[in-house]
Order: sequence, then C-alpha cells, then structure tokens
Amino acid sequence: MLLTGKHGGHSYIRGNYEMGGFTDETEGGQMPLPEGIYSIPKMLKSAGYKTGIIGKWGLGMHFTSGNPNLQGFDYAYGYLDQKQAHNYFPTHLWENGKWHTLNNTSFAVHRKLDSTTVTVADFEKFKGNEYAGTKFTDKALKFLEENQADPFFLYLPYTIPHVGLQVPDKYIQQYIGKFPGEKPYYGQSGYNTSQYPLSTYAGMISFLDEQVGILMQKVKELGLDENTIILFSSDNGATFNGGVQAKYFNSAADLRGLKMDVFEGGIRVPFIVRWPKMIKSGSTSDFISVQFDMMETFTDILGIETQKNDGISILPTLLNQLQNQKQREYIYFEYPEKGGQVAIRMGDWKGVRVNVRKDKNSPWMLFNLKDDRGETRDLAKLYPEIIEKFNAIQLKEHQNSHITEWEFLNNKSSTIK
Amino acid sequence: MLLTGKHGGHSYIRGNYEMGGFTDETEGGQMPLPEGIYSIPKMLKSAGYKTGIIGKWGLGMHFTSGNPNLQGFDYAYGYLDQKQAHNYFPTHLWENGKWHTLNNTSFAVHRKLDSTTVTVADFEKFKGNEYAGTKFTDKALKFLEENQADPFFLYLPYTIPHVGLQVPDKYIQQYIGKFPGEKPYYGQSGYNTSQYPLSTYAGMISFLDEQVGILMQKVKELGLDENTIILFSSDNGATFNGGVQAKYFNSAADLRGLKMDVFEGGIRVPFIVRWPKMIKSGSTSDFISVQFDMMETFTDILGIETQKNDGISILPTLLNQLQNQKQREYIYFEYPEKGGQVAIRMGDWKGVRVNVRKDKNSPWMLFNLKDDRGETRDLAKLYPEIIEKFNAIQLKEHQNSHITEWEFLNNKSSTIK
Repeated sequence: MLLTGKHGGHSYIRGNYEMGGFTDETEGGQMPLPEGIYSIPKMLKSAGYKTGIIGKWGLGMHFTSGNPNLQGFDYAYGYLDQKQAHNYFPTHLWENGKWHTLNNTSFAVHRKLDSTTVTVADFEKFKGNEYAGTKFTDKALKFLEENQADPFFLYLPYTIPHVGLQVPDKYIQQYIGKFPGEKPYYGQSGYNTSQYPLSTYAGMISFLDEQVGILMQKVKELGLDENTIILFSSDNGATFNGGVQAKYFNSAADLRGLKMDVFEGGIRVPFIVRWPKMIKSGSTSDFISVQFDMMETFTDILGIETQKNDGISILPTLLNQLQNQKQREYIYFEYPEKGGQVAIRMGDWKGVRVNVRKDKNSPWMLFNLKDDRGETRDLAKLYPEIIEKFNAIQLKEHQNSHITEWEFLNNKSSTIK
Repeated sequence: MLLTGKHGGHSYIRGNYEMGGFTDETEGGQMPLPEGIYSIPKMLKSAGYKTGIIGKWGLGMHFTSGNPNLQGFDYAYGYLDQKQAHNYFPTHLWENGKWHTLNNTSFAVHRKLDSTTVTVADFEKFKGNEYAGTKFTDKALKFLEENQADPFFLYLPYTIPHVGLQVPDKYIQQYIGKFPGEKPYYGQSGYNTSQYPLSTYAGMISFLDEQVGILMQKVKELGLDENTIILFSSDNGATFNGGVQAKYFNSAADLRGLKMDVFEGGIRVPFIVRWPKMIKSGSTSDFISVQFDMMETFTDILGIETQKNDGISILPTLLNQLQNQKQREYIYFEYPEKGGQVAIRMGDWKGVRVNVRKDKNSPWMLFNLKDDRGETRDLAKLYPEIIEKFNAIQLKEHQNSHITEWEFLNNKSSTIK
C-alpha cells in the first residue's frame, strides 16, 4: 500500500500469502506482485532516480514476477521472504536476486524452551554472528556513496523492532537490570526465545536509533544534507505476540488494539520528515495522512505525472503552506486479518467493523476521536446518518480481491473449490 | 495467454481459480487479471482501435480489477463467469458490467437424471428461450454497424462447442436419426443432460458455423470485406467430460490425449485466417504457431511497438513471405492441471512431462512428431542430449506462479498454510 499508493480495498496484496516454508530449502516468499503494477520505485526510476531497497521485502522471491529488481528497484538487498525475517541472524540474505551468505549457523527460530530445564546456553543458540540490521546499514552506506552524484531513492525497511527479539549483546547489556520484574521468554507466544526480553526489545530500538544516526551522518558527510528528504515511519502499532511486552512498555498508551487491529492502536504510527532546506526543525502537524499518500506526495515534490492512486499529496503540510493542502473527506481502511475488518476515518469520526467474514451484517462501531482517542464509546446508534455514509463509502471503495483468502466483504464462495 | 502473449510458464492466469459458486447469487467469476497487465485489447486501444469482447470472459467479474472494461475493452458483452457459461440458456449476461436479463428460467444445469424413470419432459427442463450464442451474434452485428467507420477489434469467444450440450431445437432436429446408436445422456459425466447428445453436438457446430457466416456476410455488406482480418481458432482439443463423445466422432483422430492434456490431442487446434486483400484463398501452411503469437502478429500488421512477450509475428507466413518468417527454437507449454504438465515442441521433437506436482523428477517423454503424430513411441532414452536441452529450456522459461495452486515445478510448500 505504501509502494503502490493503494488502500486495502484496492491493493493487489492485502496480507501475507505464504508460498513456501520456514527452512532455507523451502524458502518461497509471499504472493508476488504481478508485472505491470505501478509503484513508487517505478515512478521514481522513470523520473531519473537510482532506486534501492535494503531490508525486508514480502512481495515475491527473485524467481517470480515480484522480484524487486523487476518491480522498479535498481538495487535490492535483504530478506525476500518475510518468514526468514523472523530470524535476524539468518544464514543468508539476497543481493539483486543472488544468495549472499552470512556468517551464521542455521537454527530453527520458532522452538520453545522448557522453563524448568532451560540453561543460559539454550538461549545462546538463538544468536548468531552477523546481524541483518548491521548488514542493511553497511549496504545502505555503500548505496549512498555510490549514488551520491545521482538523484536517488533509498527505501530502508529495517525489520526491527519486530515480533522476534534478537540484537547483538552490547545493545542488550546496557538495559539489563533496568526493567524491574524482567523474566526470560521461553517462546510460548511464538517466535524466538530471549533471556532478557525487555532489555532486548529496548536494545533493538536503540540499535535502530543508532543506525538512523549513522545514515544521517553519512548523508551529511556527502554534502547531501540540505537537499535530502528523510522520512521515518512504522508499518503498524505494537504487537501482541512473540516476546514483545506491549503492556509493560505501555507501547499503545491509551489507544485501543495492537498490530492487526484497525483500531487506533494498530494503525496510528509515528511519521517524521526531515528536509532541512524546506521544513522547519521541530515543527509538528495534526494533519491526518496515511502511507499510501507517499506516491502523490513524491509526485508533487518532483512536479511529475503519476498514475491513479488513493493518496493525496501532503507536501503543502510539510512546507507549512496549509492553505494549499488538499483536504479529503475520509480515509478508508480494509484488512482481511482477524476475521475481516473495515475502518473509516472521517474528520473526528472513526467507524470500525470487525468479524465481517463471519457476519456480513457486522455493525459499524462509531467513535469520536476528538474526545475519545481510546475508542471506548460506541455512538453508532446516535448517528444513523454517518453510518449510512460509511456504508456508501465502503461500497464505493471496495474492489473485490483476486483471491478468496482476502475477499471478506463480497465473499461468494460456495461448495466449489 | 492469447490476450497477454505469454506462455503458461509466464502467464499470470494459468487455470480456473474459482471465486464463487454456480448460482446467480454466488456468481463470483474467476481470479481476475490485476491492473497493469498488458494485453492485445490495451495495445490495440492505444493504437486507435475500438475494442470489443462478446462471448465468454473468465478473467474477473466487473467488481474486480479483471473487469473487461478495465482491461482494454471499450465494449464487453457476455458471460463474466465461466461457470455460468456451463448453461447456454442463462438468466442473464453482462453488458459493460450491467446485468442484462435474458428470457430464461433459472435451473441447475448440473443435475443428473435417473435413466430408469426419465421422461422427455425432464430433458426439456434443460432448455430455455434465449440462447447465449444468438445474443452474441446480435450484439456482434450491432458492434460492427456502430464501429464500421473506425478501426475495430472484435474478440468473439463463442462458448460452443463446449462440454455442455444445448442448442435451439431446430439445429438438433436436422441430425436426429443420422447417428446410429445415439442414446440419451443422463448427466453421469457432469454438465447438463441431453436427449440427443450426438445430434446436439453436431447441431452446436452447425449453429456456430451459421453465426460465422452471418458475421462474414455483415462484414461484406458494410464494405469492410477486403480490409478486415478474420481469425478463427479453438482454445483446446475435444473434451473428455460432459455429454461430448469425442470417440464416436473421432474428434482427435490419431492424436494422443484430449482437452487438458499437453499431448497433441489437447493442444493442436485449427487456425484459419481470412484476409482477402492479402492472403490467397485456400492456401495452407505447416508453420507451427501458438495463440500467444497473436500479440506480436498484430503488432507487426500495425507496425507499432509492443511490450515484451513470448510470441513471434507470423505475418510473413500469412503473407507467404516465408524468407522473412522469424524462426523459433522451441515452443514452451506448461499446464498445472492433471497433476502438472510441461511440454516443449522443438522442430519435429516433442517433449512431455506429466504428474510433475507429485514427482519432481517425473521423466521427459520424447516423441518425433514427423513420423509419430500420435506420440506413441517414447525415444527419451535414445537422445539424452535433447532431454538435457529440454531441462535447460524449462529452467529458463519457468517463472514461479503467484499462487501455490498453480506452482508445481518449484513448489516449496511445507507445513505453513
């Protein structure tokens, strides 16, 4: 959705559809993007940009149409299978479709440990020598150096913090003892184990912070500081599974829900833009945008034409030219996971439908986020005219998915299949 | 493959993936083409042609990205769900995405009849008033009239003869009594029943023949005869199921296999081109081509640029300029049905692999079609160097499918899913 400028009711990929298994032998990636799909890298490439992706890609292995090198990226390094990204000490990553060996031993990351017999050595078995995040930074620095003379677009989907907890020891050490009540995690909620889950999670964020710093320093050293736009965001809210303890850290604050929810806890994420030449340092905005606005925003920055998409340019807001900011009536969300969910943000109003797959008539909940950020008071019965509007929006915005697994609003499956 | 110029190892759609059920309420079509897929209608539309499809479409309902009106067709009439095309007396067809009611009563076409209690009235229940094929011709005549002044491309995938046996009575009547041993068909091999299956099948072919005549007459009347190219072909060989009796009619002659096989009986089809201004009447050619050659051929006729595809232009052959005919080393076939099949035609050589889904090492059969059209003598052991070549071709031509259901050559599925 970020790359194609489409919301969840239009986008081709609407979830993880796995094409293989967890092992290196069965690594198959996810359902690939077909050829012909328009995307930010294709758009920027045609505008003369060198394009790179370094990090996690879940839109098809190199032996499919989803190969990032076929989808607009001149350079691609990292995971091509999101399942392999469950382990940050993988045996290999992929560089332009070629296997790139890392100095790590293969191990099954999803094993649980028995808390009654576990030893420190058991936890050590979930660690390796070469950390994926470090490799990403190395390759990113190289990409910056090699392309400093050209216009370039570097997309850096680091995999952390994510559901699994792994980071080089020194990032863990600095936090051990600082989190009262910290107990080992034995893998009972999936993903890898961790002797110090709270310290590791904190260490991962510190690691990521450090990488961003290293990259920004490099941009400065190359003399590209003033004219380089750095955008930072997250793909969803804090998670509920693996060793992550969202409650302990109060990660979602007063927001309802976590990752995989269309409640605010699942979809409200930080968004930071740095562009020294054009954006005043430290300024903030309450303007509501979504990641699928990026295609239109980049288009606007470049003054080029783009293909039809679901976003709007937020450049006027970034430049504090608020009088020029195009307003939208609503933002539409759709997500096939957790039984099928729909959400609409319209001004201060937020509508949410859950369990739509099972219940075609699953009712709208209606919240007023202005005085109820936590989505605790359902006002649907008081505003039937808004609900009517939401129904019309859903009808307008929903296009049937190309596979039954993701189609929950207009599901016509019967005994066939 | 015809429309996108891709062979089965590259094409996005590689089989029927059903999105709904048989009834009008659950009509959901097949997996839709995504937006952005390049196709013959898109190519011709951009070259200034009015484009129409009248007949059967199995690449997505109107409420998906596969909507023919979104896939390059200015005008679309007919079935949008191949399952509904099992009945040629449907309750409705679709005209540019709008429901078009036909004067027929709804009935379940796949019912069987009990041969011990059946009456003539039972067979009559599989008949209706308005025949889809007649509607196609009506709409095609209208399309020709309305677009006679423009360059136009009309794609006419009539649904007959197909697996179901239905045609207006007068076409059946002329054959009753002419097929010794004709017995009623009670639906035991699927599809609808028929009191006179042999006469009905013959009648369907006569009907189709008549429609082609009507259309050619109209082209002549409009003064477009000399400059209109009419191409006629079939999408596969005779079928094995429903009430069709391929053996009785010797439909596949000495060829091995039927529909759904990559043996010659499944893939060798008639191809007739009529272009009075340019092609000498009655001329024939032994040049081997495939339907995915049409994109390149049309491109060549128009002298325009096209996107990368798997075909070659056969225009030189059509024009009898054989010295200009580009030769190809091989034609590659891949088909996920019947356990996964691969075939390669290379000169007189034909390689076939079957049951590849179950057996990754399923061996190549090798036939020399020059003296063994029937693919009866497997010469694989005698020509290891050809087998080696076939393996290399398969490796080169296969791109993983976007869904596991169609991926049988490089299947990496494990316990996940």
